[in-house]
Amino acid sequence: MIVGVIGAAGYAGAELVRLLSAHPRVSSLSLGTVSREGERIENVYPNFLGKVSNPLVKPDEVVAASDLVFAALPHGVGEPYARCCLEKGVSFIDLSADFRFDGDEETFKAWYGKGYVIPELRKRSVYGLPELNRQKILELVKSGPVIIGNPGCYPTGASLGGFPALAKGIAAPGTIIVDAASGVTGGGREPQRSFHFPECSDSVSAYKVGAHRHTPEISRNLSEMASRSGRQAPPLIFTPHLAPMNRGILSTIYIPLVKEWQAAGGGSASAPRPPSQEIEAGTAAIRELYAAFYKDEPFVRVLPQGVMASTGRVRQSNFCDISVNMDQGGTTLIVVTAIDNMVKGAAGQAIQNMNILMGFNETEGLDSIPALF
Amino acid sequence: MIVGVIGAAGYAGAELVRLLSAHPRVSSLSLGTVSREGERIENVYPNFLGKVSNPLVKPDEVVAASDLVFAALPHGVGEPYARCCLEKGVSFIDLSADFRFDGDEETFKAWYGKGYVIPELRKRSVYGLPELNRQKILELVKSGPVIIGNPGCYPTGASLGGFPALAKGIAAPGTIIVDAASGVTGGGREPQRSFHFPECSDSVSAYKVGAHRHTPEISRNLSEMASRSGRQAPPLIFTPHLAPMNRGILSTIYIPLVKEWQAAGGGSASAPRPPSQEIEAGTAAIRELYAAFYKDEPFVRVLPQGVMASTGRVRQSNFCDISVNMDQGGTTLIVVTAIDNMVKGAAGQAIQNMNILMGFNETEGLDSIPALF
Amino acid sequence: MIVGVIGAAGYAGAELVRLLSAHPRVSSLSLGTVSREGERIENVYPNFLGKVSNPLVKPDEVVAASDLVFAALPHGVGEPYARCCLEKGVSFIDLSADFRFDGDEETFKAWYGKGYVIPELRKRSVYGLPELNRQKILELVKSGPVIIGNPGCYPTGASLGGFPALAKGIAAPGTIIVDAASGVTGGGREPQRSFHFPECSDSVSAYKVGAHRHTPEISRNLSEMASRSGRQAPPLIFTPHLAPMNRGILSTIYIPLVKEWQAAGGGSASAPRPPSQEIEAGTAAIRELYAAFYKDEPFVRVLPQGVMASTGRVRQSNFCDISVNMDQGGTTLIVVTAIDNMVKGAAGQAIQNMNILMGFNETEGLDSIPALF
Amino acid sequence: MIVGVIGAAGYAGAELVRLLSAHPRVSSLSLGTVSREGERIENVYPNFLGKVSNPLVKPDEVVAASDLVFAALPHGVGEPYARCCLEKGVSFIDLSADFRFDGDEETFKAWYGKGYVIPELRKRSVYGLPELNRQKILELVKSGPVIIGNPGCYPTGASLGGFPALAKGIAAPGTIIVDAASGVTGGGREPQRSFHFPECSDSVSAYKVGAHRHTPEISRNLSEMASRSGRQAPPLIFTPHLAPMNRGILSTIYIPLVKEWQAAGGGSASAPRPPSQEIEAGTAAIRELYAAFYKDEPFVRVLPQGVMASTGRVRQSNFCDISVNMDQGGTTLIVVTAIDNMVKGAAGQAIQNMNILMGFNETEGLDSIPALF
Repeated sequence: MIVGVIGAAGYAGAELVRLLSAHPRVSSLSLGTVSREGERIENVYPNFLGKVSNPLVKPDEVVAASDLVFAALPHGVGEPYARCCLEKGVSFIDLSADFRFDGDEETFKAWYGKGYVIPELRKRSVYGLPELNRQKILELVKSGPVIIGNPGCYPTGASLGGFPALAKGIAAPGTIIVDAASGVTGGGREPQRSFHFPECSDSVSAYKVGAHRHTPEISRNLSEMASRSGRQAPPLIFTPHLAPMNRGILSTIYIPLVKEWQAAGGGSASAPRPPSQEIEAGTAAIRELYAAFYKDEPFVRVLPQGVMASTGRVRQSNFCDISVNMDQGGTTLIVVTAIDNMVKGAAGQAIQNMNILMGFNETEGLDSIPALF
Repeated sequence: MIVGVIGAAGYAGAELVRLLSAHPRVSSLSLGTVSREGERIENVYPNFLGKVSNPLVKPDEVVAASDLVFAALPHGVGEPYARCCLEKGVSFIDLSADFRFDGDEETFKAWYGKGYVIPELRKRSVYGLPELNRQKILELVKSGPVIIGNPGCYPTGASLGGFPALAKGIAAPGTIIVDAASGVTGGGREPQRSFHFPECSDSVSAYKVGAHRHTPEISRNLSEMASRSGRQAPPLIFTPHLAPMNRGILSTIYIPLVKEWQAAGGGSASAPRPPSQEIEAGTAAIRELYAAFYKDEPFVRVLPQGVMASTGRVRQSNFCDISVNMDQGGTTLIVVTAIDNMVKGAAGQAIQNMNILMGFNETEGLDSIPALF
Repeated sequence: MIVGVIGAAGYAGAELVRLLSAHPRVSSLSLGTVSREGERIENVYPNFLGKVSNPLVKPDEVVAASDLVFAALPHGVGEPYARCCLEKGVSFIDLSADFRFDGDEETFKAWYGKGYVIPELRKRSVYGLPELNRQKILELVKSGPVIIGNPGCYPTGASLGGFPALAKGIAAPGTIIVDAASGVTGGGREPQRSFHFPECSDSVSAYKVGAHRHTPEISRNLSEMASRSGRQAPPLIFTPHLAPMNRGILSTIYIPLVKEWQAAGGGSASAPRPPSQEIEAGTAAIRELYAAFYKDEPFVRVLPQGVMASTGRVRQSNFCDISVNMDQGGTTLIVVTAIDNMVKGAAGQAIQNMNILMGFNETEGLDSIPALF
Repeated sequence: MIVGVIGAAGYAGAELVRLLSAHPRVSSLSLGTVSREGERIENVYPNFLGKVSNPLVKPDEVVAASDLVFAALPHGVGEPYARCCLEKGVSFIDLSADFRFDGDEETFKAWYGKGYVIPELRKRSVYGLPELNRQKILELVKSGPVIIGNPGCYPTGASLGGFPALAKGIAAPGTIIVDAASGVTGGGREPQRSFHFPECSDSVSAYKVGAHRHTPEISRNLSEMASRSGRQAPPLIFTPHLAPMNRGILSTIYIPLVKEWQAAGGGSASAPRPPSQEIEAGTAAIRELYAAFYKDEPFVRVLPQGVMASTGRVRQSNFCDISVNMDQGGTTLIVVTAIDNMVKGAAGQAIQNMNILMGFNETEGLDSIPALF
């Protein structure tokens, strides 16, 4: 099939190009841009020299040429292309935030500053976190081409870490805290002071504390999972950090446990004791529950107890690694997840969605082993 | 004065040497080692060439030669030297964990695997976090030479971020979560697989989740501050992470707010809204409270609202930067602190303690501006 | 086919495992170790979890099970396995230095400290730099199983940059200087002080100046290429550096030009002028010559004029990128080459050799696009 | 004294501010900007919070207020301020290229694209590499205020590595090659694609090969030193590289040796031998010569034989470390130098010049020990 990528010159777009070039079902690519028409992708990214030499064309040409279209554009820009795709009868996988909130335009507007461009497109759109919505996607595609709202990077790692606890009723109804650190590619290709090497190298900082746009997306995902098992939406706190690495998001997720799943810790609040055997055992039980929850998910690895999630272990793969832990007091589940923000957090997950839509094996083109360094 | 450093070949020891060499009250250094006797420090660290060429001598010689002794040794090793110092009439500033728990040998034993070597030394020891214990130190030193248990690196940044909230009664009695990331110097000088460049570069990971030895030290500090204002010890969760940078610890601290200090956020748990004006205002009020709390502390900088703490901004200084934030729901205080783990988290704080003990101006030898990169 | 890897737990071995797992001709792997027998490779490298879970077995078992064997062992260790392979009738691709010098045992002994273990194995061995020796390899394999001495990492990038100049007679008979910088994976998996993160991060240094073991290998390669066109062996200077990155070798190669290929620069020695048009034109001509020389090589990319080689552009690929430049005086060719030291500099090139030996398409299993970050 | 810094918001300017703030002879600073008037320096660089809170004022105000003025501006901008300073009777230390070429306007124009703004200022200007021109500076300042053309970063490390060989006649009259790698602060504060973290992190590349503006400055310096001992200007090749670190320049300098200083190496061009004892001895002799040459220079450290220069060993100091080596063939001297590009390569050297001008001890304000990490 011929696959289109609009916004191919950005980081997520280029990662799509890299992954799609090796996808066994993709015969050729049509690469689009809104601003660099006429350039060749291999000149924008010399990594591609001799491998991908497509010229960058207008988005309309991409739509015309393709059997399925990805868009990696800023929010608010891609809706017209989505409409053209639907009209033409091909599906559209959108990596912006435009279709992540389905009908909840108010939330979208509150965080992204403007409403939907073509609201009715939401009738044919679905939020594309496969581990949450695979069935919805499969259902919707039965009736024709669809729009996928591909998840944000942080929401992917955060949601996957929280889902089993919420679905299986081990989370008590308290606030869930997601404390996450991202690599610098998360900031995109355009140079900015914050991402200028001397400003961010050899340093870690927090940013947009209590104010990051991915907050409502994570909230909605966790709530959706909770509500499916008849539970209340948990309040969410989300704090992003910038770490001096290229790729990866590590999310540390704090989930209060219901009584039945708590374990006995030792000592007092002012003089706690190291993890007891009860805590080890309680952790093992929750880990089992997580492993069972994800046993059919091809891209989620619930790590052996004692192996800690690390972004370096999922580098350039579509995996989400999960390690399950408990605090020494035994009242809080501490789940650590690692993804590659450019793959499972962006381009890889988009391709996973394509595989689902098209009825391909979900791992096609995505089965590479994480790079060692 | 002549100052001794035992364990001068380790990272914390060498940082002491670097800082003490520029201290206006220090006339000369006596450098000790338990294992590299006879080597010159400038051969161990060529950075010192032409600047510090002392030979490394036996610890006993250091004690004999010095008017004050620092020890940067593994726990369980330094107590005999501490005793010799007291007997000789000079103070001993210990960077290991041996004297951080005062009389609470049980907690020390539970986390560090063995009891005190010379228990009675605790009669003359005090935990040396100046922002908590300056008065205690000044009191104790009146009656003769003392032992300072210099704080751990993580406990320094974590405690300073929590103190004002606990002292001023804005923290509700719930769990406090400290999520922190450290640079690799925190692991010390000895090569280990985890700190081998290809294993930790370009990657972030969590480690010792719910099981790090600094947990009881942070707990004790927060409890101590709470109890001073008649409040209960808060349960603590502490999660350390390793980040690919040389120096620095960033701590993100989640503190539930009492009703009076909460602010009205918008939206619902499943569809939160961005920070409201009420939240901005509530944050500003708490920031004011923090600034007032630390107004006489020479090494704590409560940052202007909107300036986020970053380890790169305190590099090679004794500062602890604090930024005060609130979650979008208005129920939780999110304090972010940044220290240089080798300075305020180790050698710098030890020198601050020396300055206090000796009656020097507390900033002497510690007033350098943070390096820009 | 079943492929064996002895020394699979080291960095080069693990990279072989990663690449071979995706090779379309490889049906299964047999992984060997001399020291970690019984462990599973996915426990040594959690990156492999769920993807490669082979146990590590004894080298003899690997030889017995495999249709072709790779060895990634220290020098002096693998010769007995090579003999077993030949006896069994399967080829052996050796990533150590043991077979890189063919019959020149004296040079090997001078630099590596001991002679050959089983000298006669050299009758069936060939140095496996395909761009130099593809014909020799193909010739030798006609008469049965062979041993490939896979090139060193530095020699690969250095030799490929020098070959066209030497083969085509544009290099004057003076000293060739290779100034190269390697990422830290070049030092292998075992922790050492030099590769401890705080020691090498945020710093560049030279090492083994005038004394690195790869010197005679580069010398031999350049001489071999020179002699093929009837020219003298050029004296070589090689200086390795360590750079704070995981992968990659950048080599900057200075080659004095014969008169006919020199170009007119401006100014004087003490007051040179920027590159003249003559220099631009002369560079373009040499670039053409390089491009023509390598036009059939699948893994050498002679970059467009003005695009500079960068290790980040060949990351995780088997490419050697080459940029051709001239000094402002017009007397010296400055060739810059970039490889991934773990791929074209080790495991990838070894697989390229396997492809050649086995009659596969040379790019099979090696056609991935360089990772963008 | 009151010291002015024009261009204080750039990286070199801010480093001047940091260093001058700790200078014992500087009572206060006047900070100027051409574009950010009204901002406070501590808001531009939060590192300065609580330490340096001067507002940024117009350059004219700086000149009016100061007893000496530094300018860290792009070339072509600062000459009017230099004139004002001279008229007012205060010296001007310029960190741009404007005054590095003294009367050689043609060379300046050829590389920097335009001629001098106020040519006659060169009558009162001198190139400020103290190790080359200390006497000239002292001579000129006798007759009134002066302008110092502070050296470029690369020329500092390159020149200091070459001077002894040229002055003492051990360099044969062939081409000198300087192969150097710089940290990213060398590119300044303004975000650019090349210095965007994901583009330069974890990668090394060459740039401006044979075409960097520092080439004529290095050439002039080496020629000047050669001519002082009656020798010819050596042709120069200079290749800069970008390395993923914040600070530092490592320069590897290849200098052909005259016969008398060559040493006997072993083997042949195609089969060289490791360094012989003759080479070790020859290197030791040249190292002695270097050490003697620089014995009175406070900021040059000729390292013990076997200790290799590393940028990490001079971090944040004004040192230039030099290690002396020879190739295995014994014909070429390989000198490796390390500086901190922001200190000895910019702000530190400028202050060294101030100290010289003002008759202060040359190391005042510059005697810090290199930071360990």
